[in-house]
Amino acid sequence: MTRRRPGSRLAGLFACILIGAFPMSSWSDEGMWLLNEPPTARLQEKYQFALTPQWLEHAQLASIRFNSGGSASFVSPDGLIITNHHVGSDFLQKLSTAQDDLLKNGFYAPTREQERKCPDLEINILQSIQDVTDRVNAAVKPEMAAAEAFAARRAVISAIEKESLDATGLRSDVVTLYQGAVYHLYRYRKYTDVRLVFAPESEIASFGGDVDNFEYPRHSLDICFFRAYDNNQPVKPPHWLKWSTTGPTADDVVFVTGHPGTTNRLETVAKLRHRRDVTLPYTLNRLRAAEAALLQFGERDPANARIAQSALHRVANARKAFSGQFQGLLDPAILRQKLQSELALAQSPKLTAADRAELAKAIEAIETAQKTLAPMEVEFSLLERGDAFASELFAHARMLVRLASESTKPNAERLREFRESNLESLRLSLFSDAPIEKELERVRLQQSLTFLAEQLGGGSPLVVKILSGKSIPARVEELLNGSKLFDAAERKRLADGGAKAIDDSRDEMILLARLIDPEARAVRKRYETEVEEPERQGYAALAKARFTVYGREVAPDATFTLRLAYGRTIGYQVDGVDLPFHTTFGSLFEKAERLQFREPFNLPERWKQGKAKLDLAVPFNFVSTADTIGGNSGSPVLNRAGEFIGINFDRNRHGLVRNFVYTDVQARHIAVHSAGILEVLRKLYDCPALIAEITGGK
Amino acid sequence: MTRRRPGSRLAGLFACILIGAFPMSSWSDEGMWLLNEPPTARLQEKYQFALTPQWLEHAQLASIRFNSGGSASFVSPDGLIITNHHVGSDFLQKLSTAQDDLLKNGFYAPTREQERKCPDLEINILQSIQDVTDRVNAAVKPEMAAAEAFAARRAVISAIEKESLDATGLRSDVVTLYQGAVYHLYRYRKYTDVRLVFAPESEIASFGGDVDNFEYPRHSLDICFFRAYDNNQPVKPPHWLKWSTTGPTADDVVFVTGHPGTTNRLETVAKLRHRRDVTLPYTLNRLRAAEAALLQFGERDPANARIAQSALHRVANARKAFSGQFQGLLDPAILRQKLQSELALAQSPKLTAADRAELAKAIEAIETAQKTLAPMEVEFSLLERGDAFASELFAHARMLVRLASESTKPNAERLREFRESNLESLRLSLFSDAPIEKELERVRLQQSLTFLAEQLGGGSPLVVKILSGKSIPARVEELLNGSKLFDAAERKRLADGGAKAIDDSRDEMILLARLIDPEARAVRKRYETEVEEPERQGYAALAKARFTVYGREVAPDATFTLRLAYGRTIGYQVDGVDLPFHTTFGSLFEKAERLQFREPFNLPERWKQGKAKLDLAVPFNFVSTADTIGGNSGSPVLNRAGEFIGINFDRNRHGLVRNFVYTDVQARHIAVHSAGILEVLRKLYDCPALIAEITGGK
Repeated sequence: MTRRRPGSRLAGLFACILIGAFPMSSWSDEGMWLLNEPPTARLQEKYQFALTPQWLEHAQLASIRFNSGGSASFVSPDGLIITNHHVGSDFLQKLSTAQDDLLKNGFYAPTREQERKCPDLEINILQSIQDVTDRVNAAVKPEMAAAEAFAARRAVISAIEKESLDATGLRSDVVTLYQGAVYHLYRYRKYTDVRLVFAPESEIASFGGDVDNFEYPRHSLDICFFRAYDNNQPVKPPHWLKWSTTGPTADDVVFVTGHPGTTNRLETVAKLRHRRDVTLPYTLNRLRAAEAALLQFGERDPANARIAQSALHRVANARKAFSGQFQGLLDPAILRQKLQSELALAQSPKLTAADRAELAKAIEAIETAQKTLAPMEVEFSLLERGDAFASELFAHARMLVRLASESTKPNAERLREFRESNLESLRLSLFSDAPIEKELERVRLQQSLTFLAEQLGGGSPLVVKILSGKSIPARVEELLNGSKLFDAAERKRLADGGAKAIDDSRDEMILLARLIDPEARAVRKRYETEVEEPERQGYAALAKARFTVYGREVAPDATFTLRLAYGRTIGYQVDGVDLPFHTTFGSLFEKAERLQFREPFNLPERWKQGKAKLDLAVPFNFVSTADTIGGNSGSPVLNRAGEFIGINFDRNRHGLVRNFVYTDVQARHIAVHSAGILEVLRKLYDCPALIAEITGGK
Repeated sequence: MTRRRPGSRLAGLFACILIGAFPMSSWSDEGMWLLNEPPTARLQEKYQFALTPQWLEHAQLASIRFNSGGSASFVSPDGLIITNHHVGSDFLQKLSTAQDDLLKNGFYAPTREQERKCPDLEINILQSIQDVTDRVNAAVKPEMAAAEAFAARRAVISAIEKESLDATGLRSDVVTLYQGAVYHLYRYRKYTDVRLVFAPESEIASFGGDVDNFEYPRHSLDICFFRAYDNNQPVKPPHWLKWSTTGPTADDVVFVTGHPGTTNRLETVAKLRHRRDVTLPYTLNRLRAAEAALLQFGERDPANARIAQSALHRVANARKAFSGQFQGLLDPAILRQKLQSELALAQSPKLTAADRAELAKAIEAIETAQKTLAPMEVEFSLLERGDAFASELFAHARMLVRLASESTKPNAERLREFRESNLESLRLSLFSDAPIEKELERVRLQQSLTFLAEQLGGGSPLVVKILSGKSIPARVEELLNGSKLFDAAERKRLADGGAKAIDDSRDEMILLARLIDPEARAVRKRYETEVEEPERQGYAALAKARFTVYGREVAPDATFTLRLAYGRTIGYQVDGVDLPFHTTFGSLFEKAERLQFREPFNLPERWKQGKAKLDLAVPFNFVSTADTIGGNSGSPVLNRAGEFIGINFDRNRHGLVRNFVYTDVQARHIAVHSAGILEVLRKLYDCPALIAEITGGK
């Protein structure tokens, strides 16, 4: 390997820890970089790539955020969008019926008229970033108590967002970076008329299912095409990605622009220990309970399986991701390195004595916040995050109950999700006419209320109050039969009716949401004041010390905002076996045949029958070292020319510790290859218009 | 319904609570009755059936306990045994290889020579029962402290068992009844040479899989035939059950003789609350974690699925059973009734003031024991019950480590499982040459060590000690690669070598078992002294009050010893729909076809091809009101003539609360019909010798 630069110490260290030693290392490819603080120098030095403002603007404006939790990009001048099948699957399910199962059978709209509008989907395209750190910090005075500081910060952020919305008409979000050291205002163009164009069958979209999830070699056509509309016309985006018909070859430099959700790399050891000992054990228990209930429900019959599929995938995916995180935090090597880097920072000669004292205080404050958090976290998660009420009806009911009271308050004083600048997005989801499946509501609500009782005890006052003298199944029937919130018009009526409509309502779900609101708000208030605020202040001080010592050599943790990552297309070794950087259609068929096409390794009939038509040597999936995490699903992979060469959809199991440390020894993200997509669209799917559109008629 | 007898109050009350009111009721069919305290009067009155000593002796001597956890019976003069497929499946799996999968394909031995011997299976046939309560109680003096009392009782019990073994050569177990009020000595004839004769394919044995488990209507051929040998000759049992070729019809009185495992009907409200708030939430979390790991492992490929199948079934079955228990305890109606019956007892005019004071003290002592138990239960379960080490190798290692030290102590002072009278059974399992699958060991050990860390925290001294500086996967590799306990000969060598061999051993599993033995023994000691002993004394006092007020109208809770239950073959209603008392082959095919033969509703080819050969009107499964619980799996169902009319294999979901309350409104046990078995053996399976044997050549 080549030389190591001063300043890259942290990155280099993280890159090596999984091999347990400290060999010399080049710059690693770590980093989910801010678009306004791009890794220009690194790219020049390591890959001799000149990252121009034009390249960045092109990538930024062609990149899309799916607010439902994923990434995407424009791939035609007529607003055609590509994302992952597993990002689109929520909408595929909402558009499906028992007679017309788009998840199972796939979908293609040969004409614009046949495209199907998705209920309650909002997509965002980042237009600009503005640093508002000084204004935010000016509003929070050092002498303020935690509750006051929290309120002051929330107020100034809501004001900035509202002003920006009023001035530009753009969705405006203030984003907290470095856990509280930096605040940026992100402005987005948003579209809410998004229509389905193409989806493959889920058997090939998620070939290998839960077994292959987070594994490589991989063989998934995890893609889905949509089209954005505005005023009933296809959007004409100023930038869209040209489709590379060849895609990447070995050892290419590649770029990923997407919206990584959450990483925890800059967290203190105390916070990570808290995750290991409190948050993750609870979370894993919760996810396994939900997954078991959904699996059993889905097995009962094919109709259940269809309506549970996307909830099940989400839960199973989270369970696997968090299991990997938990194993990572149990690995003594990882926490040891975290501790060493915390010590190294504290002992840096670049810090003054005063800096050091401030840093020590900050680290201690974060540790104290964890001790405060531990006894309240389960209640916070159950009541306020809603783990006890896994129900769309309940989510709507709570939104309605709170909307009625919050919207009468000044903008500055509202719970954050009810700030003026967010109300339009909130209403989009509240008034969605997507069907709510009663059978699925029943199983999820029974399961989550049971989990509540497991956590708090059947005799706890809260459980007794919620069940109101009934068994869980009986109470769930009462809630479901006594609610009209299945109907979007009824939700609209209640929202429009304000506090009086809510007060007068005898809807069982509204009553439940009102019943627990005092406790839920109380625990949220304690969480915000006693945990969130001290953490934020602590991390701001910690980041200040990091900036002094390392500058901005380390990108901020992921925040579901647009980031640029880069890496190389290169395979890796497992147990001495070389895994190539890409798979092929040939290796897909080998695997399916070896596993006798048993679920989850079955293939759609179209594929089984069409094998002979395919060039089996064409690449299907590929990996690179670029730094990604959940939320990056659907991110375009670009080449030096800014062309679309693939679409990220996963990372391998070695990448599951990426929440805490980046390593490029074995960890890889996984993408579908642009040439592979073209090959199957051409040979197996009868979709000439789609092919013409993405290849520019070639 | 007919009249209600005085004295049946408790039973009647339990029978009614699920319909929420107190209608007049006849005697219910509640009760898992001791063979030496049979319900003769009840049977006479309710069913005009004269239960003779001859009938009882016949049923007792034809009934068999599978020590692996189930029931069975002799059905031919040549030692032929019938039990459930899911009771035999452990052995089917041990006898299977990748090339010869007996679970999947089934098995039939047309000749004696082709029967296959099961590794480490011990079966017991009850020969006699003797009341030893006075001798046990005499050994425990009122003035003894808890630890002393516990030791004294253990000593006298071990002595009684050893004397009986020496005197009779029979396996001799002292059984605790009424949670500590009564002690009976059970003597068993035992056989350890048991050979597989016939098993159907698991697709039909457990048709409907986890989905249909604990559900009705049901369609499972959950049967398996074995043969007992002694001195290499088939056993000639003095009693065996004649096969009824017609089986039961509607509204017949039927009997079940089997070995129900555990019920909790006589436990106090405080104990039940402890189960609800501590034991069951932990247990459900544990089971779901294990089930998820096994499911994911099994999905990876067919070889995994085969070796994990029986562990997976066990875990999934337990998860479903405990989920039902948990829902039952969350139902306010159930605990309310329990509380009322506790109050009714306390206020009974049949008790003197002194009796009442003693009763109150007992109930309080049991409650105090729960408070003591709560903070230690998780550690007790993880370390001593072995939840943290789900590994056959570990179980062997612990057995070896403890055998070396326990066997040097006087019989009276040993841990109970090392008492002289049990050593032979213990060695049978320790030296079993059943294969231990390394892949399965790996996944179970990783999963259970992960669960340990979830429960105690990654930084707990015990976890740190057990992982010894490694990640969980690395530590598991070290344990598996560093152990020779896969080899029965090595286990034998270590057992024969005594303490020195154990001290000298560098086997990683032995070292692990030794590493945690002090903590495990310490928590067991605390459990025995601070929980088990006070509970036992409390329940003895409670039972005394019950006997005073109600006599022996209520059978003791289940203890995995032979019991007699009885009931009627009668259907029930669910949501207004009548479910008949039996299903048919016709309804089997309807269901499989409606669910498109998708797993778990697929049928073996033999069945699909053979549909036309079957009389579709023949009964397949049936239900009755007889009182059963887990452990009753494989119990014969008998008619008035003492003939075999079916084999119990499950209960329905309404029966899941039977641990706490009996009800006959909807709760039913489920059995395979003797005529249905004959029908398929004759029409689908080519097994003339087997048919001739069970029908006496008819």
